[in-house]
Formats: sequence, C-alpha cells, structure tokens
Amino acid sequence: MTILEIFNYLGQLFNSVELKGNGECQISAPAKIETARRGEVTFVANEKYLKFLSSTEASLIIVHHSVTVDEFLHKSSFLKVNDPYSAFVFLLQKFAKPRTIAPKGIAPTASIGQGVTIGEGVSIGASAVIGDQCSIGRNCVIGSHTVLLHDVIVGDDTTIFPSVTCYDGTVIGKRVVIHSGSVIGADGFGFAPQKDGSYVKIPQMGIVEIGDDVEIGANSTIDRATMGSTIIGNGVKIDNLVQIAHNCSIGDHTVIASQAGISGSVTIGRNCVIAGQAGLAGHLELADRTQVAAQAGVSKSFMQPGMALRGYPAQPMRDQLKHEAMLRNLGTMKEKLDRLEAEMKTLKM
Amino acid sequence: MTILEIFNYLGQLFNSVELKGNGECQISAPAKIETARRGEVTFVANEKYLKFLSSTEASLIIVHHSVTVDEFLHKSSFLKVNDPYSAFVFLLQKFAKPRTIAPKGIAPTASIGQGVTIGEGVSIGASAVIGDQCSIGRNCVIGSHTVLLHDVIVGDDTTIFPSVTCYDGTVIGKRVVIHSGSVIGADGFGFAPQKDGSYVKIPQMGIVEIGDDVEIGANSTIDRATMGSTIIGNGVKIDNLVQIAHNCSIGDHTVIASQAGISGSVTIGRNCVIAGQAGLAGHLELADRTQVAAQAGVSKSFMQPGMALRGYPAQPMRDQLKHEAMLRNLGTMKEKLDRLEAEMKTLKM
Amino acid sequence: MTILEIFNYLGQLFNSVELKGNGECQISAPAKIETARRGEVTFVANEKYLKFLSSTEASLIIVHHSVTVDEFLHKSSFLKVNDPYSAFVFLLQKFAKPRTIAPKGIAPTASIGQGVTIGEGVSIGASAVIGDQCSIGRNCVIGSHTVLLHDVIVGDDTTIFPSVTCYDGTVIGKRVVIHSGSVIGADGFGFAPQKDGSYVKIPQMGIVEIGDDVEIGANSTIDRATMGSTIIGNGVKIDNLVQIAHNCSIGDHTVIASQAGISGSVTIGRNCVIAGQAGLAGHLELADRTQVAAQAGVSKSFMQPGMALRGYPAQPMRDQLKHEAMLRNLGTMKEKLDRLEAEMKTLKM
Repeated sequence: MTILEIFNYLGQLFNSVELKGNGECQISAPAKIETARRGEVTFVANEKYLKFLSSTEASLIIVHHSVTVDEFLHKSSFLKVNDPYSAFVFLLQKFAKPRTIAPKGIAPTASIGQGVTIGEGVSIGASAVIGDQCSIGRNCVIGSHTVLLHDVIVGDDTTIFPSVTCYDGTVIGKRVVIHSGSVIGADGFGFAPQKDGSYVKIPQMGIVEIGDDVEIGANSTIDRATMGSTIIGNGVKIDNLVQIAHNCSIGDHTVIASQAGISGSVTIGRNCVIAGQAGLAGHLELADRTQVAAQAGVSKSFMQPGMALRGYPAQPMRDQLKHEAMLRNLGTMKEKLDRLEAEMKTLKM
Repeated sequence: MTILEIFNYLGQLFNSVELKGNGECQISAPAKIETARRGEVTFVANEKYLKFLSSTEASLIIVHHSVTVDEFLHKSSFLKVNDPYSAFVFLLQKFAKPRTIAPKGIAPTASIGQGVTIGEGVSIGASAVIGDQCSIGRNCVIGSHTVLLHDVIVGDDTTIFPSVTCYDGTVIGKRVVIHSGSVIGADGFGFAPQKDGSYVKIPQMGIVEIGDDVEIGANSTIDRATMGSTIIGNGVKIDNLVQIAHNCSIGDHTVIASQAGISGSVTIGRNCVIAGQAGLAGHLELADRTQVAAQAGVSKSFMQPGMALRGYPAQPMRDQLKHEAMLRNLGTMKEKLDRLEAEMKTLKM
Repeated sequence: MTILEIFNYLGQLFNSVELKGNGECQISAPAKIETARRGEVTFVANEKYLKFLSSTEASLIIVHHSVTVDEFLHKSSFLKVNDPYSAFVFLLQKFAKPRTIAPKGIAPTASIGQGVTIGEGVSIGASAVIGDQCSIGRNCVIGSHTVLLHDVIVGDDTTIFPSVTCYDGTVIGKRVVIHSGSVIGADGFGFAPQKDGSYVKIPQMGIVEIGDDVEIGANSTIDRATMGSTIIGNGVKIDNLVQIAHNCSIGDHTVIASQAGISGSVTIGRNCVIAGQAGLAGHLELADRTQVAAQAGVSKSFMQPGMALRGYPAQPMRDQLKHEAMLRNLGTMKEKLDRLEAEMKTLKM
C-alpha cells in the first residue's frame, strides 16, 4: 500500500486528513515508533512520544494537526488528523494478516447433533461438538474442540475460538468473539445450607444471554441464572479470567478488565469500566458510566451515574484519594501528637 | 403439576406444610416474585420481598407460617412452611429440565485406554479421552473432550462436564460434579532456586483426592501434592476460577467462592466459608467454621473455631471493623489535633 | 535403591556428602518426615522439623552437616550435605514415576495441517490439532486435545499437557512445560472508545514468544502483542490462573505465583518474584530482582534492583511495614489525643 492509498483510505473514514511529504513510498507494515523501520507506518497520539520523531526510521507517521513536522520531512512523510490513535487503529485493520481459526465448512471430525440448524458460510473446526437443537448463524466460525451443549443459539458472524464450552440454552448475539477456554452458562454457585452443615444444590435453571458485538477473553466464566437469564449487553468487552456470577446483568458497552469478579445478582449500567482484579459484592447495582479502579472492593450500590470508585471498601475517588493522603500523613500526625503531649507536660509542671 | 401435587410433594419433605387457597390450579414453572406470571410458583424468604405479594401475578407463593395472606387469596394460593427458601429449592429440582451432557454409552470418537474399568450406565461424550488403568464408577457422565490421564479413579454417579482435565492418579469420589475447564492434579508450583538464579523443578509426585458430593466450578485449578495428597473433603463446594495449591487439605462441607486462592500446604477445617478473591498464604491453618471475607488476605493461622476474618492482613471481624471505623474517623482526629495545636499556641503565648 | 546408591548419586551432584549409619538398607520412596515409614527417605532443611528426628520411622534422613545425629543411628541412617533441600529435590527426580501424557507417535485422531514439520521422537495425543505450517521440535509431547493454530513453533523437548490452546504465530522455546487449560497468544484487550460510547477493536497483530526452560501452570493466559511480541524470558516460572496482558516483557528466571495479574505493556526484570494475587498496573517497569508481595497493587515503576514491595498502592517493604505498624497504633493515638484534649480543657478552665 502506498502512502497515497493510506491517505485515501483514511480520508473516507475521517474528516480533514492532511498529507505532508512524499505520497509514493510503499508501506509494508505498522510498527511502534521506537522500533519502526523504513517502509513502516507509526503514529504519535501522546505528547511524550513526540521525542521519537527525530530518531524514528518510520516512512510514515500519523500525528495530530497541531504537530510541527517540517524539520522531519526529509526522512518521513506525515498524515495529520484529528485523532491519530483512531486513525492508526483503522489502519491496523488494513494490515492485519488473515487468521484461520477453522477451515470453511464442517470438519469431518466435528460432531453435529440432531435438529441442528447451520447458516451459510459457517466454519466448524476439528472435533467441535454441536449439541442437539443448536442453531448457528451465517458466517460463524466455531473453533476446533469447542463444545456447545444442546439448544445453544449463535447469531450471525460470530467467532468462537477453540476449546470454548457453552452450556445448554446459551444465547449468543451477532458479531460476538469468544476466546479459548471460556465457559459460558455453567451452573451458578448456589447451595442451600442444611442443619447438619451440608449443602443442597439449588438447581440453576436459567441461561446466559449475550448481546451483539460482545468480546469475551480467554478462560473467563459467565454463569447461567438460577431462573431467567444472566445478561451481557450489546458491545460489552470482557477480558481474560473474569468471573461473572449467576443472575448478573451487564449494561451495553461496559468494559471489564482481567481477573475482575462480579458476584451474583449484580446489575451494572451502560458504559461502565471495571478495572483489573476489582471485586463486586452480590446483589448490588452500579449506575451508568461508573468507573471502578483496579483491585477495588465494591460492597454497596452506587446509583449516581458517572462515579469513579476506588479502594476497599470502595468509595468515590475524591473521598478515597483524600483518605489515602490522610493515611500517608499519619507519620506527621503522630509527630505532632507527640510534640503536643510533651508541651502539655511542660505546661502542667 | 397442580398446587395440590406440590403440597403433597413438599409435605413428604417438610413438617407442617399448610395450603391456603385453591389447590386445583396447574403450575408450569418457578419464577422470581418480581417477574412471575399466572400459572407460576414463587416464594418469599426475606421480609423485604413481602411488598411484592400485592402486585405479583404468581398463582402460588411459598411463605413462612407467620405471613398473613388472606387479602391476597383472591388472586394467589399460598403454601405456608417453616423454611420457604429450602422448600422452594426442593421444588426447583422438580421443575429442572433434564440436561444432556453426553448421550448414554460411549461415543465412538471417545478414546479408551488399556485396562480401563467402566461401570454400568456410564455416558462418555465425543472425543473424551480415558487414559490407561482408569476406573469409572456406575452411572457416571464424562463430558465430551474431557481428558483423564492414566490411573484416574472416578466414583459412582459423578458428572464431569466437557473439557475438564484430570492428571494421572487423581481420585474422585461419588456424586461429584466438576464443571468445564477445571484442571485437577496439575503439578504443584515447586521449584528449588539455584545459585545462578535459575530454578530446578521439584517433582510433584503426589495426587489429588476429592471426596464425595463435592462440586467444583468452571476453570478452577487444584494442584497435586508434592508427596501424598492434596485433599478436598466430602461435600466441599468450590466456585469458578479458584486456585487450590499443592498439599492443601480442605475440610468437609467447606465453601470456597470464585477467584479465591489457597496457597500451598494450607489446612482448612470443616464448614468454613472462604469468600470471593480472598487469599490465604502458604502453610497456615484455619479452624472449623472459620469465615474469611471477600478480598481478605490471611497471613497466619487462626486456630479458634468459628472466627470471622476480614481485611489485609486479615484479623477477627470485630477488630477489623473497629479498625475500619477508626480509619473512617481519621479526618476528625486530624481536625481535633489541629485545634489542640492552635489552643496550645494560644496557651503558650 | 540402596542407601549406598543414593550416597553415590548425590555424591556426583554435590560436594562433601557424608554417610552416617548403615548403607545397605533398600529405600523404596521419599516421604514427609511426619509420615515417613520404614524403607523411606526424608529430609530436614528447616530447624523446626528437627524435633521429628526422634519419632520418624524413616530409614534415611538427609540433613545439614551441622546436625547431630548419633543418638538416632540405631533406627535411621543419615546423609549429611550442605543443602539438604536441594539434595532431596534431586533425589525426588530419581523416584518420580514416569507419566504418560500421550503415547509415542501421532494419535490417529490427531489432526495435522499442511506444511507441518515434526521432529523425531514426538508424541501427539488423541484429537490434538496442529495447524498449517506449525513446526514441532524433537522429543516434544503434545497432549490430547491441545490445539495449535497455524504457524506455531515449538522447540525441542517441550511438553504441552492436554487442552492447551496456542494461537497463530506463537513461538515456544526448548524444554518448556505448559499445563492444561492455558491459552497462549489470545488477542490482547485493546479497544478504541468511539464518540457514541461503543468500542472498535484494535487488531492484535503481534505474537507471544516464550523462551527456553519456561513452565506455565494450568488455566493461565498470556496475550499476544498488539504489534511485535509479548515476551516470556528463559527460565520464567508461571503458576496457575495468571494473567499476562499484551506487550509485556518478563525477564529471565522471574517467578509469578497464582492469580497474579500483569497489565499491558509492563516490563519486569530478571529474577523477580511476583507473589499470588498481586496486580501490576499497565505500562510500568520493575527492575531486576524486585519482589512483589501477595495481593500487592503496584501502580508505578520501581527502577532500583532488588526492592521488596508490599501493600496498595505498593511501596518499599520497610515503608509499608512502618505504615502498617502505624495503622495498628491508631487506637493508641486516638486515646492519647482524647487525653490531651481533656487536659487542655482543664488547663483552660
């Protein structure tokens, strides 16, 4: 792809793209600015990377309109845009090598149950197991060794990587991506304590419903509801090793980072961000656009939209930062207290 | 099932079940009280849900004997019991749809090793791998893609969902349930540091022994012992993404919630509860009926039965709550200190 | 194996091994000192286990040169060494039973892609899937149900247990061990937020590169880089359920314990230890030999080699322990403050 072709491609997606320098040069790959070589394209979205403009070998650099580039035009061309990061992301999609998760068609070693519906253009990998009465939409890719128990519904254009397990009744939307090792729809963790100290299992009769455009990382677990559905909204992005317990409802476009744990019957609003290793206690609710910091422990509901929470037990960011400052100040408090005590002794003498 | 049939069924299990209202109506499904419709059964175990009695459409509601229901009899029938929650749990079992994890018999694509013993009524799913000298008890279900390495023993009536891995020598009791993606008996994390900074692997020669009536969630890991056995007692319930390291011993009927981590050589007593994301340091012991709060970090043994632990490092609940109250009070302390300082200045003038 | 043979074996590996007592006795197995029986070998590396010397039935005990053993020679023989722990570890390797992960050769149910290179002496288990253009080194063992997508390179003498997934392009070194359920090379968690609150996926075009002599536990996840490589250095040891995000670089011989989470673009030096459930925020750097305590939350870089970090946010051990002591002292501070306040009142009267 030449620089001019990239210019034209981005021009279709973004307003006011400007080319500075030579447009003829062939671009072979994207790269980080620190390691980019001749023939590669990179970007600067964060001011602290501007220092690399003089040293990088990149032939093309995507920058913000405000960046002065004239002194580097002897070695690099530039595309100036309003949002260099997004422009680079869309460019990456152009360079992404095609990945084969499973060859087109149904592998001869795949096991297809009775009453299964399979749309056009579907790929089903080696040894995959599709249970009775499953329905697989058009252009889906089901990786090798993935197991769908019976009555699973998969929407069009969804990709399930190898070795995913979906329990019976799971409903998956369109354009969903599920990475390897994740388990969708296993039984919620519900046991009724008996007088003798043992437990009786509470049947988990519900399902998991996953919306459109969801991405779920590797080795995450989303449990089925006791009754009704555990709900993952449209556009939700879930990282690796995340736990979502039974009866949760996650609002559209909410992001949950790795190793976060959402206890049972939690309701999370839209456009929230739950950072890594955060934990939410059961039966609570978070309003839209709530942000939970890494390792925070949320023990109650926060119903006002847009709050940032932090700490254990989690509280609003401002209160928590004040609290942490106070903690850092403990030594000074102690010194002051000791001095006052000494002065008091003197006074009383 | 009619209300009268439900009345008879619960009457066999619980004392003093009382029917108020019409017993003829057909009940098709259980439901939550907020969403229940005509022909469905629900329950109230917690007082704060009593407010839904007037609005719910449920045809049958299970309540405690103390609840006054006369004003609702025009639209709902009631079963009065001593423990509405348990009654409902047993009723759920009646309504649970049968789930097929693997059809009866041995799938033709399953791989069965040499010297394997398989009891009557066993189901082994597609592509499952049963290693040499394994023994599978009566009526077991082994999901598709589950792998048992050699010399694994599985007790009667045990269900292993798809894509579980049990390493060689694992011993599993009766009526155990293991959910997808869990790995039982992988090598403990043991390496001897060498003078040059590298590590030599310590052979992990032991096994994992799992008692009867245990349930293990999805994607959990239980490591084999270095020597001897990692022991999971009878009736233990383990949630998803839980780590149990080598040489641990978990007492009967202990419950471990999601993402909790138990370090090596820990001994946990009977009837304990370890909440989500809690962590236990290595080589410590917890007495029977210990309760560890979510995200707590337990750094030493607690040998007195029945303690509740919380915080990092974890301490008895009462001490920790006092400590947390003191922390919340830091601002007041600081103000008081500043005021005293000012007064001291005045006095000294 | 006789005691004399063990003496000779250890004599080849360690300096100055000394035999006290009878060398003829047959040794059948290693055991813990508390449970060892006649005919078994055990060791004492930690002084607090010396008390078992009088009660243990072990026929052979490995101890440090400084231990006085004469009074126990009537029942046990002793091997005195400089490092009893290491000596016992090497002895364990002698007693380890052979484990069969997959029989020699390629299982007939394995699926081998086009253009695959397979070295001599390789075992590939039932239903394993080796994608196009993969290269498997000599004497590798690929467990049943393991899936390698296309273009994966596996070095000589590497063992991959059942049900591991390696995404396309993953490069694995020599003598590596990967336990069941781990997912190597899944897409990094990268999404560009759009104005309407939705996210656009950032293509993850890089790979994962794993050095030689690495061991990775069960159900861990290591994500591919956005561009370039996520790097796991030589000799790195990773426990179960660990998350390593995209673009990380882990230095040689670093150890990462269970459920730790390393966020994106983190660089960890050589010979570090990251304890269980610790979390590292994104884009930070830790110098060589850094030690991070369990459950710590590291929020910034620490560039001085050899530091021990603890707490949330993590700080150097000495500061953190001082801080924790101060916290424990809060009650005393409060009492002192209240007393001073009362005294002040008296003074002002």
